[in-house]
Amino acid sequence: MTAPKVLAFDVFGTVVDWRTSVARESAGFLARIGRADLDAAGFADAWRFRYIEVMRAYRESGRAFVPLDVLHREMLEQTLRAEGADPATLDSALLDDWNRAWHRLDPWPDAVVGLTRLKTRFPIVTLTNGNIALMLAMARRAALPWDALLGAEVTRAYKPDPQAYLGTAEVLGLEPGQLCLVAAHHSDLAAARASGLLTAYVDRPQEYGGRRAPDVDAAQDWDWSAVSLIELADLLDC
Amino acid sequence: MTAPKVLAFDVFGTVVDWRTSVARESAGFLARIGRADLDAAGFADAWRFRYIEVMRAYRESGRAFVPLDVLHREMLEQTLRAEGADPATLDSALLDDWNRAWHRLDPWPDAVVGLTRLKTRFPIVTLTNGNIALMLAMARRAALPWDALLGAEVTRAYKPDPQAYLGTAEVLGLEPGQLCLVAAHHSDLAAARASGLLTAYVDRPQEYGGRRAPDVDAAQDWDWSAVSLIELADLLDC
Repeated sequence: MTAPKVLAFDVFGTVVDWRTSVARESAGFLARIGRADLDAAGFADAWRFRYIEVMRAYRESGRAFVPLDVLHREMLEQTLRAEGADPATLDSALLDDWNRAWHRLDPWPDAVVGLTRLKTRFPIVTLTNGNIALMLAMARRAALPWDALLGAEVTRAYKPDPQAYLGTAEVLGLEPGQLCLVAAHHSDLAAARASGLLTAYVDRPQEYGGRRAPDVDAAQDWDWSAVSLIELADLLDC
Repeated sequence: MTAPKVLAFDVFGTVVDWRTSVARESAGFLARIGRADLDAAGFADAWRFRYIEVMRAYRESGRAFVPLDVLHREMLEQTLRAEGADPATLDSALLDDWNRAWHRLDPWPDAVVGLTRLKTRFPIVTLTNGNIALMLAMARRAALPWDALLGAEVTRAYKPDPQAYLGTAEVLGLEPGQLCLVAAHHSDLAAARASGLLTAYVDRPQEYGGRRAPDVDAAQDWDWSAVSLIELADLLDC
């Protein structure tokens, strides 16, 4: 397998543990709105599953591109409504802060060490549906040493739209086959491979709290496969 | 003066010394094409002045956005033609490599130390007309510790188009007055101020080899003014 020129990372779930972080933050916010009766991890899952559905259908929806912060905020309100809480009765600044829980996600324990090693040999960039402001805040807080923040807001297309992968290769001045997506999600890797990218899988069995991932049926024999970003650095001689 | 939330840097001339680097590289390429008779620093200046003119007129030209690597390549060919060298007779791979001299610019001696100090307190991003692939290659080679690579390719507008400044504030989730442009060019700072940004001037008297800058008449009383990025770090308590 030819070595890639650049490593491009999915972020939510691959580099950071969204579920633990959003559940922890949501526990606090649910208490503040008098809904400590709700399960915070379940709330995080419900918010995230709305995200997965919206991303999958975004291109077909015909909606103009808007940054993920805006979509996350809409999904937060929908998730609250589904639990019988009317967001119109809640403080808007509180909802904004709750929404920024996605800016404050903790990395998996191997992420910073693994990225730092991978960066010695490869440029490391994001290839994420998260918007630039979100990724910048997350990277500063979690010390993620990205060389560039790329993804949906630069290509104006959400994964798994092929333009998200092809447009990222294009701004990097690369052929698709010179760019490797690193992701914990088979569906993301399958779309990247369909666009000609190299693929590296990182197993994150705790992403859904130990439960089965929704895209496990999309598994293929990826170009590289590792249980952590540290093992990926080993595999790539970093 | 209220402290900014993010520092956004002009790069060519402010962070890196384009003239010395492009002249050094051009000396080698001019020799390879049998034109060692030409003055390499003059060649670098001629290339750069074409750039300044194209940027200034880009919005009015009505031309769709294309990345700076493409424009630099066109300008290289024009500069060669003006010197009586027909680029059609030259090896295309050689011209591509010559064009990438802009990817290999050396930082001013204070740049890495100054940016590293400024980064301890502020997110530091580019606000440059250079494209992402160019900035990524430059940053890796010169160890520039950017938090994000922003500018023309993200906003699809070249400075001094107001959209270059306003679009950068927007993707950062900021009001224009929360973003500070750091630049060695009065014309760039004037356009940023007209769009509501804060402004920090860094004096680079050697940018044009000690000669007068073309935009010296645009000087104003900027919000901060320093002789280096290290002094700017002092001024901003970093």
